Amino acid sequence: MEKPYVLGLDMGGTNSVLGVVDARGHVLARTSVKTQAYPRIEDYIDALWMEADKVVTPLGGWDQVRGIGAGVPNGNYYTGRIEQAMNLPWPSVPFAQMMSQRFNLPCTITNDANAAAMGEMTYGVARGMKNFIMITLGTGVGSGIVIDGKVVYGHDGFAGELGHIIADRSANARPCNCGRKGCLEAYCSANGVARTAKEIVSTTTQPTLLRNVDMDHITSKDVFDAAEQGDDVAKKIFDFTGTMLGQCMADFIAFSAPEAIVLFGGLTKSGHWIKDPIVKAMNENVLSLWKDKVQVLFSDLKESDAAVLGASALAWE
Amino acid sequence: MEKPYVLGLDMGGTNSVLGVVDARGHVLARTSVKTQAYPRIEDYIDALWMEADKVVTPLGGWDQVRGIGAGVPNGNYYTGRIEQAMNLPWPSVPFAQMMSQRFNLPCTITNDANAAAMGEMTYGVARGMKNFIMITLGTGVGSGIVIDGKVVYGHDGFAGELGHIIADRSANARPCNCGRKGCLEAYCSANGVARTAKEIVSTTTQPTLLRNVDMDHITSKDVFDAAEQGDDVAKKIFDFTGTMLGQCMADFIAFSAPEAIVLFGGLTKSGHWIKDPIVKAMNENVLSLWKDKVQVLFSDLKESDAAVLGASALAWE
Repeated sequence: MEKPYVLGLDMGGTNSVLGVVDARGHVLARTSVKTQAYPRIEDYIDALWMEADKVVTPLGGWDQVRGIGAGVPNGNYYTGRIEQAMNLPWPSVPFAQMMSQRFNLPCTITNDANAAAMGEMTYGVARGMKNFIMITLGTGVGSGIVIDGKVVYGHDGFAGELGHIIADRSANARPCNCGRKGCLEAYCSANGVARTAKEIVSTTTQPTLLRNVDMDHITSKDVFDAAEQGDDVAKKIFDFTGTMLGQCMADFIAFSAPEAIVLFGGLTKSGHWIKDPIVKAMNENVLSLWKDKVQVLFSDLKESDAAVLGASALAWE
Repeated sequence: MEKPYVLGLDMGGTNSVLGVVDARGHVLARTSVKTQAYPRIEDYIDALWMEADKVVTPLGGWDQVRGIGAGVPNGNYYTGRIEQAMNLPWPSVPFAQMMSQRFNLPCTITNDANAAAMGEMTYGVARGMKNFIMITLGTGVGSGIVIDGKVVYGHDGFAGELGHIIADRSANARPCNCGRKGCLEAYCSANGVARTAKEIVSTTTQPTLLRNVDMDHITSKDVFDAAEQGDDVAKKIFDFTGTMLGQCMADFIAFSAPEAIVLFGGLTKSGHWIKDPIVKAMNENVLSLWKDKVQVLFSDLKESDAAVLGASALAWE
């Protein structure tokens, strides 16, 4: 009985999750290793292989496995290299080649957000779409751009850094982790939302449930809980965040005229509280020919599966 | 003797230029009609055919002609239609289909800036490049984006409106012809440069040769002439314009990671006066991974040929 599988690897700064995925997008088995536990890349790959072997064997063995797709911080699709990934123990290594040798399987890598875009196109809300933009709202803000059914890699493999589009060019724009100022990521990442919450709560005299929250660890979940209870300050935080994102999305549309923009990540769990201001700002700011024409979709893939599925989609290519 | 030709049509709001182009990009003959002289699209196309016949016949006749490519305001590559082109006597018509019927030849259309990108890729400074962005600086600011060797049309055929990216989100951003505020076009079009000149000249007490120029008809050529004579105010105008453009180009790079950005149009005749501030602002504002890595090129196609060549390149596809 022939049931081809692929392996999807979601490498994070802390955990690396490896899943066995079938052609219909079911994650049949999963396992993981601690990314930071292996100062040598060879040991990390050995550990991955041993964990994979434990789950592949009961599923019919390595003969069934067609390839490996990996979503990797700063992973370069063209070169197969991890390039200057500061959160990893091995910032620059020829990862795809090393994986391929150890596993004796073809291995394709890309960055996390491009993998997410592949996942949405193959198994998620962007199924059947040829032109869409994926934006991942997490610790950082990432993006994967799909044009004519293909992820855009650009001249060097690093296209789609929409988290570092300048959202605010004013003198008091926020500093970003990239060393510049005013990047979208400084406003719409988890940390950006926390910063907005602190700023708004500390400068308003309005009563708000958020004064009961530890401001050093506030998350969009806390803001969501307050908004659900009718808290106006919480709504203001979502309005500000959604407006920043929606304004930038209007510019993204002028670039590639997508059918939809797909959002993924913690912030999307705040549902309409964040979606309404995003859609409003996008349509108020977009060139009239696209007004009310571009869908804003929230990913419906299970968060625990999405990254593995996205990575695995690369392996089927 | 077989010498295949194509026709390239550059339709402007005032003039429509039709050229006969060979496979090596030589414009063998050209003719034109007045766009506004034909209230009925059928009459315009008849006039074009009659003019074309006069130049095609001496070159060997219609048997040699393989097709027609047209660069048309608001021309849609997918539908072949002109859509809401406010400067034309016939704002919405199925142009490609009508041309094809009258000429008995395949006809492909796109907008002016996409045609310019095709021209640069086929005959100009972008020969051999697979990933670049074309920006046309004229009455408006247009753009054509090339990814993996193909012009990006997006979901609806209207991708690449980079003239309408918001360059200034501040409260006193300039109104744009599109009805919004702060668009790149409001700063880097011919009119945008004239407006910058007026603003800077009227608010400075510095001596400047530009006080001798009729401010209602000032062009980048006037500013160039002054800069060449060491005029500091003229240099300031180029610095402001180039900085606005370079900042936006830094964002465009984060989108598609191009090998080069190619600029075309009147403003580029100001040479290093405009190029230096563009390159400086681009590299100061771009994410560090692209710093000093993306070429800024000025088109070297003859202005009179470029649009016709670009349009003709479509016909060879």
